[in-house]
Amino acid sequence: MELTNRIIVTRNYIDGAPKESDFEVRSRVVSLSREPAGSVIVRSLYVSIDPYQLTRMKSDSSSQSYSSLATGIAPGEEVDCYGVGKVVASGDPEFEEGDLVGGLLSWGEYCVLKPGAMFRKLDPMGFPLSHHVGALAFSGLTAYAGLFEVGKAKKGEKVFVSAASGSVGHLVGQFAKLHGCYVVGSAGSKAKVELMKEKLGFDDAFNYKDETDLKATLKKYFPEGIDVYFDNVGGEMLEAAVDNMNAFGRVAVCGVISEYTGKGRKAAPDMMDVIFRRITIRGFLAADFMCVFPEFMSAACEHLGSGKMVSLEDISIGLDSIPSAFVGLFAGGNLGKKIVQMAAE
Amino acid sequence: MELTNRIIVTRNYIDGAPKESDFEVRSRVVSLSREPAGSVIVRSLYVSIDPYQLTRMKSDSSSQSYSSLATGIAPGEEVDCYGVGKVVASGDPEFEEGDLVGGLLSWGEYCVLKPGAMFRKLDPMGFPLSHHVGALAFSGLTAYAGLFEVGKAKKGEKVFVSAASGSVGHLVGQFAKLHGCYVVGSAGSKAKVELMKEKLGFDDAFNYKDETDLKATLKKYFPEGIDVYFDNVGGEMLEAAVDNMNAFGRVAVCGVISEYTGKGRKAAPDMMDVIFRRITIRGFLAADFMCVFPEFMSAACEHLGSGKMVSLEDISIGLDSIPSAFVGLFAGGNLGKKIVQMAAE
Repeated sequence: MELTNRIIVTRNYIDGAPKESDFEVRSRVVSLSREPAGSVIVRSLYVSIDPYQLTRMKSDSSSQSYSSLATGIAPGEEVDCYGVGKVVASGDPEFEEGDLVGGLLSWGEYCVLKPGAMFRKLDPMGFPLSHHVGALAFSGLTAYAGLFEVGKAKKGEKVFVSAASGSVGHLVGQFAKLHGCYVVGSAGSKAKVELMKEKLGFDDAFNYKDETDLKATLKKYFPEGIDVYFDNVGGEMLEAAVDNMNAFGRVAVCGVISEYTGKGRKAAPDMMDVIFRRITIRGFLAADFMCVFPEFMSAACEHLGSGKMVSLEDISIGLDSIPSAFVGLFAGGNLGKKIVQMAAE
Repeated sequence: MELTNRIIVTRNYIDGAPKESDFEVRSRVVSLSREPAGSVIVRSLYVSIDPYQLTRMKSDSSSQSYSSLATGIAPGEEVDCYGVGKVVASGDPEFEEGDLVGGLLSWGEYCVLKPGAMFRKLDPMGFPLSHHVGALAFSGLTAYAGLFEVGKAKKGEKVFVSAASGSVGHLVGQFAKLHGCYVVGSAGSKAKVELMKEKLGFDDAFNYKDETDLKATLKKYFPEGIDVYFDNVGGEMLEAAVDNMNAFGRVAVCGVISEYTGKGRKAAPDMMDVIFRRITIRGFLAADFMCVFPEFMSAACEHLGSGKMVSLEDISIGLDSIPSAFVGLFAGGNLGKKIVQMAAE
């Protein structure tokens, strides 16, 4: 079988904010017979669109070499990403045509998974397939591990989440509420704030664009101080959160979206506060917490299945929508998890 | 018994670098009969002079309220500090005249320890009394707990210490070497650098004042990266250290001397590095690690007793030398632990 695959690649390194013109479509002919023995060809169904990918597209992505999942992406190179797909041709006896799989696919209509590639058969367990790209995959694990393993959130504690209507943030807030924490989220629009309070059950939420003094804002929302800050944004918000942390507070550093495009000011948290309040600031990647994956899946399935947790998904259609979907992330365009549906199921 | 006590107090709040004129001597008459029942009067022998005390003397010392040992000090108020002394009058049956004690004394020739005060009888165990103010007291515990409990230094790891000839730093470096780590220290003079290399057994050391690009400097001394950074200074050095950390590296934040006087630029460590390398930055106070005090004392006594570890002490004589001793800390005047001997033993 031979087929023409369309993929999205970068045309150049991207050192500032991404534009749609930084990307282009390329066509490549794919044939199982020309791939290494044991390869599998998958039709992409849903792919994950994540802000951290921008850091891989910079001319200097040296820092990313510290994680095998986040190495640099050169112009013209295939962009790998988490996704869900269906096997269309298999040279591996463990997979057959029609099998659903989840794992490291790419920004392409099809994807050749060579032996050793990171993917597995997927059982949807009655959930929409798109959930398996977000709440039941890395976004969910990131939220769960960051909140409980890194942030060590305990019942009754005060939790602050930034970018709280985003792919990870909206799950962090819900996990924290279900755990018995007091939760406040920040986001960049009135609609997002309403959503957090009314649909996601946050105790409170605010639009950071309406605020001029973030330290005072957090003081208002956390009169008793913050125990856990789940940081998706860095910059001034991180400084303001540290200023409001309680003794032995924990900051789980998940993302720095304010700095990905090189525009935002770097956070300079007060290190005297860090010492006297014995604050821990810890960066993490979900991939280091596969040990809690079963525990996370069990909790997420239970909460989603019972309707106590909502998976917010913002789905665009078709390969050609990938550049605008990706660019939109940095303008706060998405509500919940940004996903591109690549083909009908 | 009635005696005249001379103490050093601040004349005003100190918000910048301290000057000797910020302090003055006051005399107070002390009599055991006028103190609460059970009080003990102690003649100070050695008192500890510590940079963090400056943060307690600021007009806004709100952050310090997070530790009961570091509350604000108002002008004219007694300055409490760790020290060793001898009982001269006791209303507590557990203490008698001539007993040596160690604990929270003050910047005074005498010190009234009321019931509930933090002090205990001291057994010198054959070591000089001055050791019991530094290497065998909080400076030593700070070094030990910061390196092993917070920094989690393991044999073979690469350890960087700033202010490495200071009260805590010179002990951190020696503990790390004795544990089988590779250790490099930074300090502010050629003499200090030589001392670290020749007397303290550091693998290497450098004078940060000779360096223009601290990131490049650390890259040179740590071609394989830093696993543990014991931070006594904050500012640019913290940024440079984070830039050179290995995956899963730990920063034990012990002091921010570059910022105590309000002159230094605040550190803005790269949070992208913190995430992708999964770095932990954690502030601590030795007082939270009393649980490892016995283990620390056993190690310190063994190393000091066998001569494998050296306690560097920089001793001034007499109450009147306290202001200059304290002011000198912020100009890098001290070598090792700064102590004032208040009376002959």
